Amino acid sequence: MRFTIVREEFLKGLTIVGRAIAAKNPVAVLSNIKLELNEEGLVLTGSNYDLSIKTLIPFKNGDNEIIRNYKEGATLINAKLITDIAREMEEKEITLDVLDTTVATINDKRSEYQLNCVRVEEYPDLDLEADGTNLVLTTADFDLLVDQTAFAASNKDQRPVLTAINLEAFEGLLTATATDSARMAKKIMSVPNDVGFNVSVPAKMMTEVARLIEGVSAVEIAVGDKKILFTFGKTIVATRLIAGDYPNTKNIVPRTTNYSLEVNSQELIKAITRAKLLSLDRENVVDLTMSEEGVTISARASQVGSSNEKIEMYRFEGDMLKISFNSEFVVSAIRALGSEDVVFGFVGEMKPFVIKNPADESVVQVVTPVRTY
Amino acid sequence: MRFTIVREEFLKGLTIVGRAIAAKNPVAVLSNIKLELNEEGLVLTGSNYDLSIKTLIPFKNGDNEIIRNYKEGATLINAKLITDIAREMEEKEITLDVLDTTVATINDKRSEYQLNCVRVEEYPDLDLEADGTNLVLTTADFDLLVDQTAFAASNKDQRPVLTAINLEAFEGLLTATATDSARMAKKIMSVPNDVGFNVSVPAKMMTEVARLIEGVSAVEIAVGDKKILFTFGKTIVATRLIAGDYPNTKNIVPRTTNYSLEVNSQELIKAITRAKLLSLDRENVVDLTMSEEGVTISARASQVGSSNEKIEMYRFEGDMLKISFNSEFVVSAIRALGSEDVVFGFVGEMKPFVIKNPADESVVQVVTPVRTY
Repeated sequence: MRFTIVREEFLKGLTIVGRAIAAKNPVAVLSNIKLELNEEGLVLTGSNYDLSIKTLIPFKNGDNEIIRNYKEGATLINAKLITDIAREMEEKEITLDVLDTTVATINDKRSEYQLNCVRVEEYPDLDLEADGTNLVLTTADFDLLVDQTAFAASNKDQRPVLTAINLEAFEGLLTATATDSARMAKKIMSVPNDVGFNVSVPAKMMTEVARLIEGVSAVEIAVGDKKILFTFGKTIVATRLIAGDYPNTKNIVPRTTNYSLEVNSQELIKAITRAKLLSLDRENVVDLTMSEEGVTISARASQVGSSNEKIEMYRFEGDMLKISFNSEFVVSAIRALGSEDVVFGFVGEMKPFVIKNPADESVVQVVTPVRTY
Repeated sequence: MRFTIVREEFLKGLTIVGRAIAAKNPVAVLSNIKLELNEEGLVLTGSNYDLSIKTLIPFKNGDNEIIRNYKEGATLINAKLITDIAREMEEKEITLDVLDTTVATINDKRSEYQLNCVRVEEYPDLDLEADGTNLVLTTADFDLLVDQTAFAASNKDQRPVLTAINLEAFEGLLTATATDSARMAKKIMSVPNDVGFNVSVPAKMMTEVARLIEGVSAVEIAVGDKKILFTFGKTIVATRLIAGDYPNTKNIVPRTTNYSLEVNSQELIKAITRAKLLSLDRENVVDLTMSEEGVTISARASQVGSSNEKIEMYRFEGDMLKISFNSEFVVSAIRALGSEDVVFGFVGEMKPFVIKNPADESVVQVVTPVRTY
């Protein structure tokens, strides 16, 4: 294998597939990137089994030549080294030449590297073929789906299924749900009527895909039995699904609420940020007190002191209520809604409460209060 | 004690003295800031014994009122809390009121905090009086002195004196020296003839002072027996001196060299940065090879590969020479010189070599080579 390639394009491709390569990979061969020059161009592949990414750098982009002076072939090269080298080199083009199956040279006018490489036969077979149900989402919709739910997934591995975003397509609606069992985020959007599936995709992988699709207009999703495939531009991302039943979250959103509070998002976030400076006893827990007299956020740390924040702009309906919650859960839920105002709906002191954008029914955030002593 | 203060000015003062407060202070009372309102204004003090900082916020800055509605007194308040509170509050002014000796309230229109505080009598007596020899340096000179030497001091505590910058004033010259015994940086500047001292100041504290004096024009230095005092604007910084003899570094700079290499600083730094990607066997060690054929930087990692970088622009005098060095030492020495070109002077393969700015004799960097096997 041999090719001379525009350095920027090579680096872009290496960086994309490098996202799948773990810093410490238990399977040594997966610390490499697979480079394959075939009739379509240079195909790069990176994988950590859970996540696999394949991208094609074509010979030409329109009239601009990207790869020239090439000979077909394939090899495996250490991902970190080849990416660092491509990043640090300075010329417009670099040349990679696999001398025999075990040594590659990479050079431009001033730099020359010799790198040991690994025979391509050692690389595992990865399943990157689309099967199952197909669906196309715009990048904007996909981003919204991930941004409004992924943060609520668990980051602990005790119940693997809770580290996922559950995606359910049924009767024309796609519902994305994430919960770590103390809070829940749910986003609903329309999809074609004939699309149907119910799968759990690791939330981290969804976030990774959202990052990778930046700059393209849409992403094609293929939902299979054991994997989900995302295709965009010249890149394919495959991620395994998480097996096991996703918990039933249908009844978590309270149908009716007894108290309603509408506030300015930024004012509330700032008040919480200040009040929680004193939430030292139970980290991040603050109290929200609502009554005819006003709305306050407060916290207390024994032997240190207390804080009290008045909310200036609000609309409250209901009797007096005091409720304690993890302020980080509430702040990230408000941020995910992304609206100027938010509406809280409470059932009672110890019941899960909802946070919504008053102008958008497609997304709902639910947070369980913290018991006060 | 009681005062209403312009929040920005209060925060600025708290941030300055907060630099002296360690994240985990073994002496509990030193996790507090001392606030003292007297006839001059509000005096803030922070200390970790090794470093003490005192700053005055005057009642007025020109015609602008900074502190109003005040009552004299003093107290100790947790540094992190009061600083975070002053940072997060939003109004222009905040009011602090010590209700009795143990509770302070801090409030503006929307926020109210109650903080436990500590009686001022519990604070240790700090010696912040100037004694000994006096010297004034411009901020530009002080910065240069620190930037060109501090990085070469040791960051290990085995030989405490090597964590210092040695400052020697003698016969009209101030010499700053730092060495971790594998490299040395020396900077010389003119001072008045009658100034004489030889002290070792922790390099970290010198860097801290350089950060604090940003924006003022000059710093007054008072060198005592056990401490050194830096005064600028309304702030005094005291730091302990490190006891013990500083090693004799007079003969470390070679008087004559047998090889001379002049190169462009940026080209060399970039070549080193690329070559050292392959310096995996001995971290950061690269080889510099000079001969009539050219100048190269190279590195080698067993079972991984090798790198080779051609230096395009150079002037070399001498026979062939190959020398190995810690690339980080050389890169930080070149950066400290801050010049477009640098000149290396070598004595031989295993002898310390010098790096200089060809246009500035006041500063010299010395690096000891690494043995090659």
